[in-house]
Amino acid sequence: MAKKVAVILSGCGFLDGAEIHESILTLLNLDLLNVNYQCFAVDIEQTDVINHLTGEATPEKRNVLVESARIARGNIKDISQLATSEFDALILPGGYGVAKNLSNFAAKGAAMDVPESVLRACQSFATNSKPIGLICIAPALASKIYGDSVICTIGNDEQTAAALEEMGAQHQSCAVSDIVVDEKHRLVTTPAYMLANRISEAAEGITKLVKQVIALI
Amino acid sequence: MAKKVAVILSGCGFLDGAEIHESILTLLNLDLLNVNYQCFAVDIEQTDVINHLTGEATPEKRNVLVESARIARGNIKDISQLATSEFDALILPGGYGVAKNLSNFAAKGAAMDVPESVLRACQSFATNSKPIGLICIAPALASKIYGDSVICTIGNDEQTAAALEEMGAQHQSCAVSDIVVDEKHRLVTTPAYMLANRISEAAEGITKLVKQVIALI
Repeated sequence: MAKKVAVILSGCGFLDGAEIHESILTLLNLDLLNVNYQCFAVDIEQTDVINHLTGEATPEKRNVLVESARIARGNIKDISQLATSEFDALILPGGYGVAKNLSNFAAKGAAMDVPESVLRACQSFATNSKPIGLICIAPALASKIYGDSVICTIGNDEQTAAALEEMGAQHQSCAVSDIVVDEKHRLVTTPAYMLANRISEAAEGITKLVKQVIALI
Repeated sequence: MAKKVAVILSGCGFLDGAEIHESILTLLNLDLLNVNYQCFAVDIEQTDVINHLTGEATPEKRNVLVESARIARGNIKDISQLATSEFDALILPGGYGVAKNLSNFAAKGAAMDVPESVLRACQSFATNSKPIGLICIAPALASKIYGDSVICTIGNDEQTAAALEEMGAQHQSCAVSDIVVDEKHRLVTTPAYMLANRISEAAEGITKLVKQVIALI
């Protein structure tokens, strides 16, 4: 029977939502491996809406689930419907959406919180020993998910790495083309656009991450 | 010297803008071939804004250039700045944005018009014998660009094909995994999400299209 992976998106656009390249590369690699996927998102208002042409905040209001649906071509569900028993693994692409909508890491750093619905979904995969892949800035959630000294990477940004270590993670530097695997926790991470200067660089690491997550099932 | 391709986006989301998967697959394949690209879009209000979760129209107003910037990670220019002399080829991903923002094909069918800025940019590549790649529904623009019996595909949808033929194009049926090449006009087309049921199917045709467009330079 085909393997099935849940993908949690955090909006649509790297400055206020899910990083679009990373999200599509995740779905592409899952599909190329004949792995079924289902996208999920939280049904909440985005923390902000950024004009991606100017980089400036706008007064608009947008919903994380509704905007994430653009990436998923409408085939997306509310995270409250995510039943871990139906999936073999979980992957979260990055983007500021992870640090603004799936947590408040962008505002609070190591003092961040994660919404209960997101935390419950992710922890359920962890406690059932189902592998998780966290891309780009998504490893900011790792300590909250695993609750102990989990090994992960966000590339080589010292300030971000320090915040992750303050929360209890063990950060390992990693090239954009590579992944870090925590075998004990069955967690796979890759820097993607924390380091990538071009889409093919992000693709290299994400392709490895998806393969490793599937191999850990 | 590295080849350089202009990519015209039409928003961000298949129901009211550029098809995101097709756009990212285009950029990925260009980058994998070490071809430089620059994204462009028209600085106009979108024809509509569709909630991609429900499929319903909303009262929101969004700008094509600003939303396209999400796909391009901010690296995008107004189409008025597109100097054909700086590029070797042009590619347009699909999505309803092509039929709503880069033309009014969705509303008018064969009686459609194309905004002057879009038509001028595309025609400039055609008259300079520079190859063009049109993905998904983007071949709806082919007759307006070339002005005579251009050969192209939108897959196998009879009604859409009939509208293209009414405008003067010669439609050829084509599988999702394949491309149609009009050698005389240096035009390459592929059905992508006119037919694709999964992202890997769209990827197969788009990968071939990008390679063929580059080969025609």
